Amino acid sequence: MIAVLKPNATKEQIEKLTKWLEDRGLKVNLSQGEFYTILGLIGDVSKVDTDLLEGLDMVDSVKRISEPFKAANRKFHPDDTVIEVGTPTAGIKIGGSNFHIIAGPCSVESPEQILDIAKSVKAAGATILRGGAFKPRTSPYDFQGMRSDGLELLLEAKKQTGMPIITEIMNVTHLPLFENVDIIQVGARNMQNFELLKELGTIKTPVLLKRGLANTLQELLMSAEYIMAGGNHNVILCERGIRTFETYTRNTLDLSAIPVLAELTHLPVIVDPSHASGMARLVEPMSLAAVAAGAHGLMIEVHNDPPNARCDGAQSLTPEQFAETVTKVNKIRKAVEA
Amino acid sequence: MIAVLKPNATKEQIEKLTKWLEDRGLKVNLSQGEFYTILGLIGDVSKVDTDLLEGLDMVDSVKRISEPFKAANRKFHPDDTVIEVGTPTAGIKIGGSNFHIIAGPCSVESPEQILDIAKSVKAAGATILRGGAFKPRTSPYDFQGMRSDGLELLLEAKKQTGMPIITEIMNVTHLPLFENVDIIQVGARNMQNFELLKELGTIKTPVLLKRGLANTLQELLMSAEYIMAGGNHNVILCERGIRTFETYTRNTLDLSAIPVLAELTHLPVIVDPSHASGMARLVEPMSLAAVAAGAHGLMIEVHNDPPNARCDGAQSLTPEQFAETVTKVNKIRKAVEA
Amino acid sequence: MIAVLKPNATKEQIEKLTKWLEDRGLKVNLSQGEFYTILGLIGDVSKVDTDLLEGLDMVDSVKRISEPFKAANRKFHPDDTVIEVGTPTAGIKIGGSNFHIIAGPCSVESPEQILDIAKSVKAAGATILRGGAFKPRTSPYDFQGMRSDGLELLLEAKKQTGMPIITEIMNVTHLPLFENVDIIQVGARNMQNFELLKELGTIKTPVLLKRGLANTLQELLMSAEYIMAGGNHNVILCERGIRTFETYTRNTLDLSAIPVLAELTHLPVIVDPSHASGMARLVEPMSLAAVAAGAHGLMIEVHNDPPNARCDGAQSLTPEQFAETVTKVNKIRKAVEA
Amino acid sequence: MIAVLKPNATKEQIEKLTKWLEDRGLKVNLSQGEFYTILGLIGDVSKVDTDLLEGLDMVDSVKRISEPFKAANRKFHPDDTVIEVGTPTAGIKIGGSNFHIIAGPCSVESPEQILDIAKSVKAAGATILRGGAFKPRTSPYDFQGMRSDGLELLLEAKKQTGMPIITEIMNVTHLPLFENVDIIQVGARNMQNFELLKELGTIKTPVLLKRGLANTLQELLMSAEYIMAGGNHNVILCERGIRTFETYTRNTLDLSAIPVLAELTHLPVIVDPSHASGMARLVEPMSLAAVAAGAHGLMIEVHNDPPNARCDGAQSLTPEQFAETVTKVNKIRKAVEA
Repeated sequence: MIAVLKPNATKEQIEKLTKWLEDRGLKVNLSQGEFYTILGLIGDVSKVDTDLLEGLDMVDSVKRISEPFKAANRKFHPDDTVIEVGTPTAGIKIGGSNFHIIAGPCSVESPEQILDIAKSVKAAGATILRGGAFKPRTSPYDFQGMRSDGLELLLEAKKQTGMPIITEIMNVTHLPLFENVDIIQVGARNMQNFELLKELGTIKTPVLLKRGLANTLQELLMSAEYIMAGGNHNVILCERGIRTFETYTRNTLDLSAIPVLAELTHLPVIVDPSHASGMARLVEPMSLAAVAAGAHGLMIEVHNDPPNARCDGAQSLTPEQFAETVTKVNKIRKAVEA
Repeated sequence: MIAVLKPNATKEQIEKLTKWLEDRGLKVNLSQGEFYTILGLIGDVSKVDTDLLEGLDMVDSVKRISEPFKAANRKFHPDDTVIEVGTPTAGIKIGGSNFHIIAGPCSVESPEQILDIAKSVKAAGATILRGGAFKPRTSPYDFQGMRSDGLELLLEAKKQTGMPIITEIMNVTHLPLFENVDIIQVGARNMQNFELLKELGTIKTPVLLKRGLANTLQELLMSAEYIMAGGNHNVILCERGIRTFETYTRNTLDLSAIPVLAELTHLPVIVDPSHASGMARLVEPMSLAAVAAGAHGLMIEVHNDPPNARCDGAQSLTPEQFAETVTKVNKIRKAVEA
Repeated sequence: MIAVLKPNATKEQIEKLTKWLEDRGLKVNLSQGEFYTILGLIGDVSKVDTDLLEGLDMVDSVKRISEPFKAANRKFHPDDTVIEVGTPTAGIKIGGSNFHIIAGPCSVESPEQILDIAKSVKAAGATILRGGAFKPRTSPYDFQGMRSDGLELLLEAKKQTGMPIITEIMNVTHLPLFENVDIIQVGARNMQNFELLKELGTIKTPVLLKRGLANTLQELLMSAEYIMAGGNHNVILCERGIRTFETYTRNTLDLSAIPVLAELTHLPVIVDPSHASGMARLVEPMSLAAVAAGAHGLMIEVHNDPPNARCDGAQSLTPEQFAETVTKVNKIRKAVEA
Repeated sequence: MIAVLKPNATKEQIEKLTKWLEDRGLKVNLSQGEFYTILGLIGDVSKVDTDLLEGLDMVDSVKRISEPFKAANRKFHPDDTVIEVGTPTAGIKIGGSNFHIIAGPCSVESPEQILDIAKSVKAAGATILRGGAFKPRTSPYDFQGMRSDGLELLLEAKKQTGMPIITEIMNVTHLPLFENVDIIQVGARNMQNFELLKELGTIKTPVLLKRGLANTLQELLMSAEYIMAGGNHNVILCERGIRTFETYTRNTLDLSAIPVLAELTHLPVIVDPSHASGMARLVEPMSLAAVAAGAHGLMIEVHNDPPNARCDGAQSLTPEQFAETVTKVNKIRKAVEA
């Protein structure tokens, strides 16, 4: 860490600050320039609050040199993390050179609905089934999901199709209900629900962590770090669009997140083109782009009857559209690998 | 609600859509233009998903006419909500023509620390004591607050000074610990933690709801609506800065939120200049600006020893700085009221 | 256009407003709801200022139904625009099913530099040569380009290689110098330099119009409309990243712009992955993604000696890296077309 | 400037980079850590492109220590700049402890209109008259201003009322028309029209430079630097709102810009609350807030007949509203100064 002092910092002030830093176990290297004095801090700087240092009158600016995430950092773990999903016999692995498509409805609505969709998406090439039971909705007057009943139906569809399932958790007290869920999803609005993240660190179930609407990639990695620091290293990252000034699309899908995260971390990165755009007709081009940019997988909303879906019908593909998209995705994958 | 159809929508498609809308209990008025057909929808349009409609191939765009919030809407509740805080004998009311300053440290650190600060801020003019017990931190390696012990110390400071207290809740399971807390704070990162909001709707304790870093004012009101829909109408809104491309300040304080919210809702609006800027030296000018723009109160971080604060020292005022700021705030209030 | 009036609008106010609108040649349809009165406005609403209407005390909100752009609008011009670049014998066409790669250095630096790079990128598959002569730099102390001398060198490279050239214009008074330039580029910072756009509308040279850092796709189309309204219909749009809160990449490349613009307009869309990311190592994945999403072409910065480039070396590929990228781009194109 | 190298940088690479930096006249201090090597660069680092350094494979990150602006930097010019406007006998000074209100219509529409408004705003307390002659409009089909005729009328109003005038320049070729204009305004969309800025650096007329919709405060200062580097030190900065995700207001007024700019620069800062909000009813509260935060002045749109204004009527105050706002502004000023 480097602290740049203001030109008017007095010798006495500098000595006091140096002592304060040394009391925190840091080694301090002082270097004097024409307009500035620079302090280089060596040691466990994670104990120093950069905002605090920066707030001192005598300090011009503070620069952190090393990233604040460790367990998620590729520097210390160069090899790709590969996460096993479902039973070992299922043989589903996320990360590394593997590629998987997660598909299913925004929300579970009935036994027939979820089973029908599960069968179609499986036939088309999806390997993991998604389906919302607990639904985060902006309005309290909107459909909130079938909740524990929906989870039951999803587990039943898993039994009948053999597909591992992923569904979203919204409340730390619901965790016991998720025992047989194969991947637990943390939604964008809960990316910094730190109490939930800590709890998910105490189990071993893989967690799919969605990037928050206004969160930087570094913050996404810090949230992954919360889960990993607790002992659960099975974290899958998910880019699903960020909030910008553009209003035509619901969010702006940030596909550069894929190569950037590949540099910074060893964790797998999945893209959700459905939530990013909010429009079914943008799902295919954005899926193809995500694959071309190197995503480890896709998560796509599919509904057998979009106009009557109880949520997010606007962005759901029909099973037929989904099958077409998978065909094109596979062509792009082959072109990328070739 | 108004749906604008594309020029190529066929008569058959229009009839099918009309029937579908009527099946949802809506009255449909059709009006034909040169390039567009427009459907005016009358009735309980809260049951129609605008995104879904907008996603149909034949639909060009959908415009909602009425705001989706009801309990929080000034149209239906023209008078300002005034919320009683603490015991009735304390006589502290937030909203309407009342003005209050909430002050205290980012986090409770020791019995002496919280009591000392409480006494200083009370002497300077603050009427409500803030202090973090459970702290949301970006890094799992940062100080996470004294948690339930911190809450105990805060309650003790309340007893000794007679000041009502406000502190943040991060986990729905902690609610029993908050029984004697006078205002429960929901932090920016939990503004759309809907499960938490629902639970807070079931009690009567006033809730201070902070605007999320990337949330619109309408979304803030929808989150207030979650609490109010459950029966708890004691909601105080708090503007604390939004995330923009500007990096000099931690966030961009959106003071136009004050007059805009005054139009849209009857709920009181408090401003937190400490978190918005992240720098102590910006707290005073932004406090004065907030008061001039019509805020119902301020929430300011104060610490007796900022350089040794365990969190957010950079943005904390000393008790002396706080007292000076209060003096200036009072002058502005007089000028505004005069 | 639709104007929604507030519940408290009086009959007299409504009549006065109706008359005012009719005086502007509009037909007004009044429809009364429970809480709102709605005015539907039919006719040439481009003469009505929506902001003005919205600002009236009695008006709740105003919704424009038709897009404000006409010449650029696919609704009125369903077929893709295909733009001929350079001499007809060169046979270079942008738009429709054509695909072209524009490549070259950020700035022209010497006769050898531009000629060497031109030859390498041509050999690798680029069909159009880029090179900056007039350079927009944030700092007045940075290299501002070789200006008219640079333009001379670029024209000489065109002569020797037969490649059409593209270069940026920054000043309306420089237009005479651009007589033999094949595509005139308008940079992101000048996207709303309306005086420049108007002037470019009076000539026939194709214009590549870059999206501004904080401009919506609709504003991009309105700027294209400025050029087209003057008579020059040869406009090529360019997505080059927008400004968001994310700081890891210089800008956030918005690839959903490709399918969205394909819906809204008949004009071709090119992607510039070099400026969007600001890092050479992100250029290849973002190029592949852009092609998979349906871009009509790419514009890529290439330099024979990036560390000694006089500007933007950080984002420049070497000729070898460029050749590899082109090979992969072609594979993706085949996969998309197959 | 500090360059942090990656852990895998070889000794040979480091030596090569060091030599390259020394060839640029810099002194290089090397310091070796556990995971990183850090190079401290001393000398005229303005000649080093940080993006380029950052783009090298061996470099992890580059931190600039000193701000890139010099003439505008308070560090080198501690005293407030005070700018004389109009004839010396007028005695109008902007900056330091002075405070001025600029007022007038969005656009000049007729001799009577501009003269009437000029007289009313002067009577209410405005000291400088604004009025648009050349108007930047998003749509080519909107009213573009009366152009040179409008400028004539504005000059005539100046003659009759004795008020100095301010009006916007959009085209470098129009400069001769601005000879008798007292302050030349550069609009938000032209903040990085560097060719225009350079030209304005060659004259002595004060320039009011508006912050671009997506520009940081540092970029605003770099654009001021363009004008000052040319020799014209009479630059007035203007905050007028930035573009964010919030759609309720047209832009988000960033009032923290006032104290931040006061730290960074000696130039005066004016606030334009009319364009920031886009709604007349927000102009007063935002004006009061700006004054409380320490602005050196305000620029407010006033129209004698807002519903019939040819542009921006929605955000214009009537002369009566303006007079009321000035009265309140003066009260706040007194409270701030007391």
